[in-house]
This record gives sequence, C-alpha cells and structure tokens, in this order.
Amino acid sequence: MNSTAQTGPKIRLYELVIDNERPSSPYVWRIRYALAHKRLAFESVKVGFTDIPGVCGGRFKTVPIIEHGDAALAESWDIIDYLERSFPAQPKLFSGPAEYSMVRLVDAWWVADVMRKLFGLYALDIHDAIRPADRPYYRKTREARVGKTLEAFTAERVGRLPAVREALAPLRTRLARAPFLGGEQPNYADYIGFSALQWAASVATLPLLAHTDEALIGWMQRGFDLFGGLGRDVRMKSLVEPA
Amino acid sequence: MNSTAQTGPKIRLYELVIDNERPSSPYVWRIRYALAHKRLAFESVKVGFTDIPGVCGGRFKTVPIIEHGDAALAESWDIIDYLERSFPAQPKLFSGPAEYSMVRLVDAWWVADVMRKLFGLYALDIHDAIRPADRPYYRKTREARVGKTLEAFTAERVGRLPAVREALAPLRTRLARAPFLGGEQPNYADYIGFSALQWAASVATLPLLAHTDEALIGWMQRGFDLFGGLGRDVRMKSLVEPA
Repeated sequence: MNSTAQTGPKIRLYELVIDNERPSSPYVWRIRYALAHKRLAFESVKVGFTDIPGVCGGRFKTVPIIEHGDAALAESWDIIDYLERSFPAQPKLFSGPAEYSMVRLVDAWWVADVMRKLFGLYALDIHDAIRPADRPYYRKTREARVGKTLEAFTAERVGRLPAVREALAPLRTRLARAPFLGGEQPNYADYIGFSALQWAASVATLPLLAHTDEALIGWMQRGFDLFGGLGRDVRMKSLVEPA
Repeated sequence: MNSTAQTGPKIRLYELVIDNERPSSPYVWRIRYALAHKRLAFESVKVGFTDIPGVCGGRFKTVPIIEHGDAALAESWDIIDYLERSFPAQPKLFSGPAEYSMVRLVDAWWVADVMRKLFGLYALDIHDAIRPADRPYYRKTREARVGKTLEAFTAERVGRLPAVREALAPLRTRLARAPFLGGEQPNYADYIGFSALQWAASVATLPLLAHTDEALIGWMQRGFDLFGGLGRDVRMKSLVEPA
C-alpha cells in the first residue's frame, strides 16, 4: 500500500483472520480500503473470533477495532467517521454530506439484502475456513441466530444462488454506465462491495458469479487491483463459475 | 410552487393523469419534484395512457415528456440530466458526480425491488383509478407483462404486504439518523421515494404502511409538505393503515 508519511500516533487495526492468516471480515476490509484511500499507514493485529474479548479490555464484541492514540473504536461506520474527521488533510472518502447519506442508504440496502443472502450461501464455508479454535464459538453463535445447524442452513444453498445473483442486479445496472459505482472513480460504495467480495472469495466453495456476468467480474477485477493490488491475493477464481 | 422568473422558452410537461385529473405516474412526479427543486415554472399538459401516441408526433411511448424550445425528451433520467445541464444558474439537484452516481444506484435498487413489489400490490387499483378510456390499453399491456389477469395477479396481495414493507427497511435505517434520505435536506433520492408514494397514494385501496411505521410516515409527511405542499393534496391516508 502506498501511504504518505503521517505524523502523530500510529493507527492499529485489529483484523479478523481465517485459518490461512488472511483478513476475511467484510467490515475489516472496509477499513482496509478506507485506510488505503486516505493513504494512512497502519499496524495490523491479526485476531480470531475468540481473541476479541482480549482486545481493548474486552470493550468491543466485534472487529474491526482501531486504536489511535487514546482513541479506540469498533463499528465500521464509527471508524469511518473518525478517520474522516481526524485526518482532514488526507484524501476524503466523501465529497460531502449528500454523498455520505447516499452511501449509507446504499449500505443499508446492501446489509439488509445482499449480505444476508451471502451469509445464506457461505455460513458453513466460513466455519470451515476459520481457525479451528474459533469454530465452536462461530458455530454456536451463528446456529443460535439462524435456528438450525450450519449444515441444515446451507443444505439448499445452490437453489438460492439465482436469488442472490438477482439481488446484485442494481450493481449491474450502474456498471453498464460507469466503471465504478461511484462513477469514473471508486467511492466508499465500491469499497463496501469489494469488501463483501473479498470476504466471500476468502471462504467460498460455491462460486457466486456466473462466468457470463461480465459487468460484475470486470468491476471486481478493477476493484481488487486498486491501491497497488490490495485485494489481489484473494482466491478470486473461487467467486466465478468456470465457463 | 415557488418559481423564480426564468428566461427563454417555456417548459411543457406532459403528465399522466388518472380519472380525477390528478398526476399519478411516479416518473412524472420525479420531474415535478425536480422542477420545483430547480424553481422552474412549467406548463402542464394532462394526458391519459392512450393520448401518448398523439404527443410529439408519437416519438415517445411513455411519460414524462418535456418540451423546451426545440428539445423534446422522455425518460426521467434523460430529463433530469437535461434540466441540470440547461439551467446551471438554478439550484442544483446533485452536489457532484459522486452523489449523482449514488442516487442512480439507489434508484436501480428502488426500481428493481420496491417499484416491482408496489406494482404487485396496486396493479389492479391503478386500472380502476385511471380514465375509463385508458383501461383496456392498460389491462392489455400489463396483463401481457405479468402473464395473468390483473385480478389474478393481485388476488394474494395482502399476503405480500409484509415483504413489501420489509423491502422498505433500508429507508427506515437511514431515517433513524436523519430527517431525509439525503441527510438534513432532501435530495433526489427523497424525491424518487416521495414520487412512488404519491403514485401509490393516488390509487391505493390497500394501505402500504402500518400505522406504527413512524419513520416512514413522518418522512412522507415531511416530503409531501415540501415546496409549499406540492404533494399534500393526495389521499395520504390511503397509504397508512388505521390504528
């Protein structure tokens, strides 16, 4: 990552990693993209699910967590707001309040619809990809949430694939007219999308995209090449069906 | 509507009206809101579905249509782009390309998901509300699209109401934090939403919103009050279930 020299305390990012030590959480990836966009260097601390209670005195239940001087924050939007406010001289993530509001609306749709559907595809793949020590915790919390075993929850996942692909239709509509969701340049809505694809790609044993889905495949490739290939080491092929 | 004096040729807007002469098309309403936002006066020409082939030599299949000097355009986004380009001294609809791109992404979601679901509720109500002369055309074209009679298509609509209300969840998420989707001020994403609600309210015989849906009811009221109450004469009560 290219980062300009920055003064002041170092930023520390606690990142959820899977069994191959690769960052996987879609919300951590959002912060990785945001830090890259703002050209901010950071120190990475790799954690598993069960390490989180040991971070920052157990104040936070989820990653991403950042520490910066006396500040410690979790929740990706709180972190985004903090970074935007604390580093006014670095490239801005948002052109102004209207773009910010629109990205948050896009995110509300994305989380309620797309992320939920992606979890329906990959709930068991996540289990199988994370550190063995984290698997009992993950299984217990997620099975309580969905009310069945991860195996039962994902048994019919192939049948759900058309609905998941259909949920991505609004992206295709936009990408027919511009290379990025943000237009000629990527914006934070793109980073939200790329982060979800990074997450899916890091665990998927079922390809998300048809090989004919050129709009989304091209967008993903452009996204994974950003910032010197920040996201390029992912198993991108795992997301696209063979021709 | 407050409109400042404008020089040059007059804008003429062809508007679809229902049997009570009220504008109903959600896409016409978008242009009404956009013209109000830009403080542009216009001359309204009320048409029914079957009048459209007689407008502008039959060049366009749908309304809204605007004429302005030598220009004639249909398709609401083409009209929006035209207005923004042609009246640079009037209030802008978009702060810049990033907001514009985000609103178009929101609209892609809105049309693919919400508008489709609203049609599933109100397809027959629209038929019953439009001018009698337009009903055979509307029935024929819409029944060809959905592959069944309007009556059969909407017979189970009450059962679909929970899914329609759920589809509006991203709006509630945003409106928990700000009075408008655009933030402290409404933007074109709000106008897209208000336009759909105007359309639904003008025909609905089944309330869209639960009376407990305070976030959306409050937003609708704020929206319908904009621009001196541009949208306030609608049967707003038809959209909200009695307590």
